Amino acid sequence: MIVRDFNEIVKNERDRVVNDAKWSSVRMLLAQDGMGFSFHITFLEAGSEHTFEYKNHFESVYCMQGSGSITDLATGETHAIRPGVMYALDKHDRHTLRADEELVMACCFNPPVTGTEVHREDGSYAPAEEAVEA
Amino acid sequence: MIVRDFNEIVKNERDRVVNDAKWSSVRMLLAQDGMGFSFHITFLEAGSEHTFEYKNHFESVYCMQGSGSITDLATGETHAIRPGVMYALDKHDRHTLRADEELVMACCFNPPVTGTEVHREDGSYAPAEEAVEA
Repeated sequence: MIVRDFNEIVKNERDRVVNDAKWSSVRMLLAQDGMGFSFHITFLEAGSEHTFEYKNHFESVYCMQGSGSITDLATGETHAIRPGVMYALDKHDRHTLRADEELVMACCFNPPVTGTEVHREDGSYAPAEEAVEA
Repeated sequence: MIVRDFNEIVKNERDRVVNDAKWSSVRMLLAQDGMGFSFHITFLEAGSEHTFEYKNHFESVYCMQGSGSITDLATGETHAIRPGVMYALDKHDRHTLRADEELVMACCFNPPVTGTEVHREDGSYAPAEEAVEA
């Protein structure tokens, strides 16, 4: 059994905290944990906007705090994001996420991320095998 | 893209809400969503105690609200559960979870549950193929 505490990680395990442009992510579970998915608590800064397209991953995102919106760039449809709303990128959907207030999200990735990925220009993460080699 | 609202599900999609002995679970994502994992928001009643052993699944559980404890029945070790603590049953660990206050948990299952499983006497869910047949 793995037991981890978000608050301990933030204080003492900074290698599990990834910061990028106006977002940060606390990696509670990664590929090496052997669960077959990864699990992150991710913060998006108030006023920020992010376009991602996880061509090589499925991701679900559950809003725990904050408010914003998500636009599906294939359909143009926009959905409000507030606590309790989840979106799931079952078609690797290219999307734009906006944080009106800071968003705090619980995210699951399949396949799991290794923690070393960076967003590529197209908004994706590399497939798992490339990430491991990186 | 799938978008679902916990609050709408609780009001209008009761087939996504599973109630059992002193716990209930809102199934935000299930096997048929094709994400390769399922995602549930699960409530455990204050004062309740639960022994589970997911022999056929990996599960991670992130505490969003409440307080309690978990005992790993293989080692006897007990860990406090409070907001921010996550446990992951990477060895299909048999465990007892206690809610001192009501616990609200974000749970991921791999393989995903179908929503029709019931806990068997040994605290497990049937493997996916049996659950589908059930």
